[in-house]
Amino acid sequence: MSESRFDNVSPLDFRYYGPDEKLRALLDPYVTEKGRVLSEAMVEAAAVRVLARRGVCSETVADEVAAAADGTSPEEVAQEEARIHHNIRALVNVMRSQVSDEAKPYVHLCLTSFDVIDTAAAWRLQQAAYNGMIPQLAELQQVLIDLARREADQIQIGRTHGQHAVPITFGFALVGFVSRLGGRIEAIRMAADNLCGKISGAVGAYNASALFFDDPDEFEAEVLAELGLKASPSSTQIVEPEQVTDYYHALISTFGVLADLADDMRHLQRTEIAEVGEEFEADQVGSSTMPHKRNPWNFENVKSMWKAFMPRMVTVYADQLSEHQRDLSNSASSRFNPEIIVGLANSVQRLVRIMSKLVTDEERMKQNFEMTSGMVAAEPAYILLAAHGHPDAHEAMRKLTLQAQTSGRMLWDLICEDEELAPYLDKGDAAGSASIHRHRG
Amino acid sequence: MSESRFDNVSPLDFRYYGPDEKLRALLDPYVTEKGRVLSEAMVEAAAVRVLARRGVCSETVADEVAAAADGTSPEEVAQEEARIHHNIRALVNVMRSQVSDEAKPYVHLCLTSFDVIDTAAAWRLQQAAYNGMIPQLAELQQVLIDLARREADQIQIGRTHGQHAVPITFGFALVGFVSRLGGRIEAIRMAADNLCGKISGAVGAYNASALFFDDPDEFEAEVLAELGLKASPSSTQIVEPEQVTDYYHALISTFGVLADLADDMRHLQRTEIAEVGEEFEADQVGSSTMPHKRNPWNFENVKSMWKAFMPRMVTVYADQLSEHQRDLSNSASSRFNPEIIVGLANSVQRLVRIMSKLVTDEERMKQNFEMTSGMVAAEPAYILLAAHGHPDAHEAMRKLTLQAQTSGRMLWDLICEDEELAPYLDKGDAAGSASIHRHRG
Amino acid sequence: MSESRFDNVSPLDFRYYGPDEKLRALLDPYVTEKGRVLSEAMVEAAAVRVLARRGVCSETVADEVAAAADGTSPEEVAQEEARIHHNIRALVNVMRSQVSDEAKPYVHLCLTSFDVIDTAAAWRLQQAAYNGMIPQLAELQQVLIDLARREADQIQIGRTHGQHAVPITFGFALVGFVSRLGGRIEAIRMAADNLCGKISGAVGAYNASALFFDDPDEFEAEVLAELGLKASPSSTQIVEPEQVTDYYHALISTFGVLADLADDMRHLQRTEIAEVGEEFEADQVGSSTMPHKRNPWNFENVKSMWKAFMPRMVTVYADQLSEHQRDLSNSASSRFNPEIIVGLANSVQRLVRIMSKLVTDEERMKQNFEMTSGMVAAEPAYILLAAHGHPDAHEAMRKLTLQAQTSGRMLWDLICEDEELAPYLDKGDAAGSASIHRHRG
Amino acid sequence: MSESRFDNVSPLDFRYYGPDEKLRALLDPYVTEKGRVLSEAMVEAAAVRVLARRGVCSETVADEVAAAADGTSPEEVAQEEARIHHNIRALVNVMRSQVSDEAKPYVHLCLTSFDVIDTAAAWRLQQAAYNGMIPQLAELQQVLIDLARREADQIQIGRTHGQHAVPITFGFALVGFVSRLGGRIEAIRMAADNLCGKISGAVGAYNASALFFDDPDEFEAEVLAELGLKASPSSTQIVEPEQVTDYYHALISTFGVLADLADDMRHLQRTEIAEVGEEFEADQVGSSTMPHKRNPWNFENVKSMWKAFMPRMVTVYADQLSEHQRDLSNSASSRFNPEIIVGLANSVQRLVRIMSKLVTDEERMKQNFEMTSGMVAAEPAYILLAAHGHPDAHEAMRKLTLQAQTSGRMLWDLICEDEELAPYLDKGDAAGSASIHRHRG
Repeated sequence: MSESRFDNVSPLDFRYYGPDEKLRALLDPYVTEKGRVLSEAMVEAAAVRVLARRGVCSETVADEVAAAADGTSPEEVAQEEARIHHNIRALVNVMRSQVSDEAKPYVHLCLTSFDVIDTAAAWRLQQAAYNGMIPQLAELQQVLIDLARREADQIQIGRTHGQHAVPITFGFALVGFVSRLGGRIEAIRMAADNLCGKISGAVGAYNASALFFDDPDEFEAEVLAELGLKASPSSTQIVEPEQVTDYYHALISTFGVLADLADDMRHLQRTEIAEVGEEFEADQVGSSTMPHKRNPWNFENVKSMWKAFMPRMVTVYADQLSEHQRDLSNSASSRFNPEIIVGLANSVQRLVRIMSKLVTDEERMKQNFEMTSGMVAAEPAYILLAAHGHPDAHEAMRKLTLQAQTSGRMLWDLICEDEELAPYLDKGDAAGSASIHRHRG
Repeated sequence: MSESRFDNVSPLDFRYYGPDEKLRALLDPYVTEKGRVLSEAMVEAAAVRVLARRGVCSETVADEVAAAADGTSPEEVAQEEARIHHNIRALVNVMRSQVSDEAKPYVHLCLTSFDVIDTAAAWRLQQAAYNGMIPQLAELQQVLIDLARREADQIQIGRTHGQHAVPITFGFALVGFVSRLGGRIEAIRMAADNLCGKISGAVGAYNASALFFDDPDEFEAEVLAELGLKASPSSTQIVEPEQVTDYYHALISTFGVLADLADDMRHLQRTEIAEVGEEFEADQVGSSTMPHKRNPWNFENVKSMWKAFMPRMVTVYADQLSEHQRDLSNSASSRFNPEIIVGLANSVQRLVRIMSKLVTDEERMKQNFEMTSGMVAAEPAYILLAAHGHPDAHEAMRKLTLQAQTSGRMLWDLICEDEELAPYLDKGDAAGSASIHRHRG
Repeated sequence: MSESRFDNVSPLDFRYYGPDEKLRALLDPYVTEKGRVLSEAMVEAAAVRVLARRGVCSETVADEVAAAADGTSPEEVAQEEARIHHNIRALVNVMRSQVSDEAKPYVHLCLTSFDVIDTAAAWRLQQAAYNGMIPQLAELQQVLIDLARREADQIQIGRTHGQHAVPITFGFALVGFVSRLGGRIEAIRMAADNLCGKISGAVGAYNASALFFDDPDEFEAEVLAELGLKASPSSTQIVEPEQVTDYYHALISTFGVLADLADDMRHLQRTEIAEVGEEFEADQVGSSTMPHKRNPWNFENVKSMWKAFMPRMVTVYADQLSEHQRDLSNSASSRFNPEIIVGLANSVQRLVRIMSKLVTDEERMKQNFEMTSGMVAAEPAYILLAAHGHPDAHEAMRKLTLQAQTSGRMLWDLICEDEELAPYLDKGDAAGSASIHRHRG
Repeated sequence: MSESRFDNVSPLDFRYYGPDEKLRALLDPYVTEKGRVLSEAMVEAAAVRVLARRGVCSETVADEVAAAADGTSPEEVAQEEARIHHNIRALVNVMRSQVSDEAKPYVHLCLTSFDVIDTAAAWRLQQAAYNGMIPQLAELQQVLIDLARREADQIQIGRTHGQHAVPITFGFALVGFVSRLGGRIEAIRMAADNLCGKISGAVGAYNASALFFDDPDEFEAEVLAELGLKASPSSTQIVEPEQVTDYYHALISTFGVLADLADDMRHLQRTEIAEVGEEFEADQVGSSTMPHKRNPWNFENVKSMWKAFMPRMVTVYADQLSEHQRDLSNSASSRFNPEIIVGLANSVQRLVRIMSKLVTDEERMKQNFEMTSGMVAAEPAYILLAAHGHPDAHEAMRKLTLQAQTSGRMLWDLICEDEELAPYLDKGDAAGSASIHRHRG
């Protein structure tokens, strides 16, 4: 058995999550193996609590089982599973061993394995969203709002195709990410709200609980209510898979927004652009042989994590298929899915840290803006010419900009000298001319 | 240029969609190249209509442009694009060539390419959902509802891991798909409702329209309202990508439900199971060398189409990233996305056809159910033993079922003969015993 | 920091690999974080060894560095990295702290970070193939060969589309997997052989080593030879990515063969087919509520692991792109790739265990074969009729099989009674008739 | 049925391939539906040719069938398939209708559908590689070789993380792509050589041909030799899937190299970098509203096509799984795979066109190089200090570069003024100093 995190094979365990006390405090109960076992024990306890409420067993029994659930040892469950090769039966056996003979029969009564597994999973995913990702993303959104406000009037050249286009402010560029992030937070919240459990027994037919109750669906609803969950609209051995599919889609598409932001920031750090910078710590080393390098490694890391996790959505989609009332071929695969939560949380936290200290170089933004500032007159000139009736303003401007680039002269001067254009410009109203002047730089 | 559909390389064009008159009547305006060009011309016309309403040009001009839009020839646009290498400018040039000199300047005034491209795309995707996929899926859902009603009492053995588990009815199995399909229809509707356009100009900064109007966002809203669309909460050169990401997620996750249904049906057609069958036409050939074969090829086809289209979601996720105010590296890729609509529509239509004629073999369902009918007593017996205080009912039943399998004797007989179990069974209440009896088969 | 494996988030670390002493003995040096650090230290030591051989430093220095490399503590490297935020510089600092002042300057001399990272990675992947996966796969292949020999004459019905087709033997079915597995072992070997290192310095330009040597590429070759590696045909800051792409393709496509085998085996375990079975241990529990269930969970697990790991190839393909002489956005992502090795190794080992104890039910194979045994006469009958000049043998047989299915009569009897066919059957030569008889069952 | 290519839904058919006469001349027989039908007819004819050679039928019959194969009409086959719902039987029926009664029985004799389908597919994929992609890629490689020679001495700043690193030449940067492309051409060739056919009958058991021949595997080899193919090492109803998996991996990984090249080129075209440019045609329009824009749209297109096609490898991997002797759920999906060939060929051709006219701006390369030219002294200085025994050269240089950046002074001046460094620099040999001087710029 591993003695240190360096014996692990997952970069999450040895590098990105395991050593991160802050993130672990937020997510451990929902993403670790220990968290899985304890949440499953919690479902078992919730079921017995409702059995007691309905008079099938005593409240004392329910208390006993609840205590056993809280104290469940993942090690013991693992050892029992190694013996009998069934994970939920192992949990049940361990819990039964902790309670009185009176209580023993009520542990797992009326439940099938996937009542416990899927319900506990829904609870963990929902809690990870409510307590982990949503607050984290809200924090990132606030950092971006603050930054956008700070940079609201900071002129920047807008870029399409990596080419200078028309003027924006840096704050404007950031506001787009605020909006997109807000949309994703809402998507995560909706998907988390929609996660459901099931206490419908083997193949979802309520065969077991119907032996005890005339209203097995009410029994199901009561057990799930103990955990703050609703029942799946339908279920087989498992809940409807689409609830989880939607949830991971919300996460993966959120990851895409982060990666897009990171991509923009690292390109703005290119030596030739240099409009923004990650704050460097005093002791930080940029390159092992090139001591002068200051790499945008945090933004690169976010892009890279997205590349690692985005394709896993294929697994989630593949797991929508389960033969008949279910086959187990989505069991091992779905165990890996919560890694997506951890990868995303790591990237959100990283961006919070970096974006809240983002350095802007106003001078460079101005210089870059002015590189082609003559050219930004092209768009308003074209529009005013068109508005004043020039029959082919776009073509006229295309030729003049070509001429400006060849000659190195300012575009505006060429426009003013052009006799063919004069009649249309004279018609230009004050507002329009002012606009063009505004863009002359 | 291709002379027949057999010169095409896409199976959609030569096989699954091109020859399907019914599907083409439903989707052509939203998924073909012709549909793309015409919808983009429609956006250009809508913008001029609002310019006229706002007094920038006359209504006559707007009428002229609208007529030009309706009559746009994709061939001419393609020829012009081959000349100037810019697709929207090509469209604009062709439209301008169809209108009077007075109208010419107003075509594309205040618009940037992606105002037209993204707005037209949102309109096409939305219409494809409203007019194509949602009605189709509702039809499939109705077919499944009818079938579920017909088979509501048809006993079937529930299967987990491909193994006989506990009893269900075939109707119950189908109801799960009704519910899941209903959830997906709702997901498609929400995603389609959320598709937005943009008329915010180059890099989304309203630089152009602000030259004309004090309320450029109102201008945007008016143009989009002409098409039944809302404005994107934020935009750069392009709308927020997540609107489209969510849309395709809704489609791809719907495809997963279809594939799961198809998988179940084709396994139920296995020679050894043979509980259902696709209706065979009289002239149909099952195998080129094995004349006796009756293959579940329609269900196999649906599974296969899902395998072809599901991974394309990776492209959609990758296209969330676009550098700065956009780069064009999501242009070609996004042209392929509507193929997902066509692939899905083909599979929905196929399932409507096959499921509405699905043949059930009641006799085989009964035979299969009885194969292990002695064993289905195991679950209720275990539960009643536990409910009546047996300290380890699961283990007791596990051993008895092993004994039943080894000896070939009926499980129920072994249970009744077991002296250790007798005290717990005697305690059994009437309802419980009745339940067990119900399951004796 | 994690205290037990149950605090981990990766199922590999807490479940599928961490607790598996046998697999860890095979793979730990190549897949854990500790293995990574030690292999990178080994590359540093190899470079100094060659510096000494070339007279740049003394052999004593090289010995010192080699000792420091062997004793490198991953914990200390991690602590230093937390301070300076550069992983290779951290390793260098730790190694330097272990050697004399004389030796200090030679650690990492002439190397850039990725000389160390990529070379060590190539070594680890190559060794994991040579010492781990190839021997494991050879063992699995041998298990399948033995099984195929044992089942060489075991008649089984061949199945296409899940439908009974024509006769095979179970051994024949297995031989296909032996061949495919052999092809994949060869593919892994070729890809592993082709993994290269680089000692070409920053951006691959040999700028640093060219300050010392006239033959920097010879220096590179000598360092790599210490590790049994060749130099990449070209390199930038990194080796040509395709070497690693090919390697993981070989693994992922091998995983596909395992998943296909597992899929076949679990379907052959279906209750209605029941031709094979996983051996169950005496204490094993099949279901938590259905004590009679015997699930093919090991085969399901292999299919499921394939679903978890196959999509990761998308990440590997995405990492072929690295801007200019490299950007770091393939760094975090590539740290996850060795998990593919671990996932594959787990599945190979599982199949070795299960397939070597696979139980065949000869009686069921015979029963299943006979279910439609009348029908298997269709193919040879059709062929002989055609061979003897029947103008449309396929159509004739198609109708007769339809008639046989409707009437429940044996196909062969219908053939013999058919007057239209008689002239062609009379022409049948002895061999042909014998063949048909062979298939009458 | 579609009347023009604008009624198609695939961008390949209406935009990227359909209108491209040059590419169609190269690939049509291997990628269109017509090509599929004709190649399958060719396999049917080859089989009859061998039957004749072996005396089963006359050479006249073989000639008749060969003529029928050449003249097969895809339209007629499609019509027949619409009637009988079996594609190969439809082909067979159409071919039979074209030959004499004597010849009719020999069409498709001894073959199963997938003997024809898989063998014809192997032939098409192989020919597409030999006649299409390999010559195309060789042409691109030659363009890059010529360009690399032209730019062999063109100084350029090497970039890692988008940051200036150490000097290279532009030719050096290109040579890496020459090497990687060479590796991929070799990979495609190997994979194409390894594509195999099969004439082993239903489920690969030679049941049919064994009725006629004692050496059915020899018969198979002879038929395949007619088409220049070998037999698959093993087969079921289908050939070993890995042959095709490897083939598409070779294509997809080649696409990755193209995308990486395109990415580098488009970033070098950024306004602030501007080291290279796509040649613009005189009439070309860069932007519909910004007449001054010159977008790297061809390189963006290549990146975008890669994003569209790369994920399809997931489908190819999924198709390695086929139940038992095969199920049809990889039929529709595999029909889409040849689109990968077309997408790749389009991108190769585009890069040939653009790279052969690539414009380099020597002045900008020099300016960019000099932006941080003081800093490139850092690496050689660090190395020489270390080589001459400085105990912590890296740290010393890290501090000096920080100082240079803060003060705006030249790094080399700071180095020379530093008293602590002086003793180590005095030891510097001539070569080393010369090297540093070389890099002072």
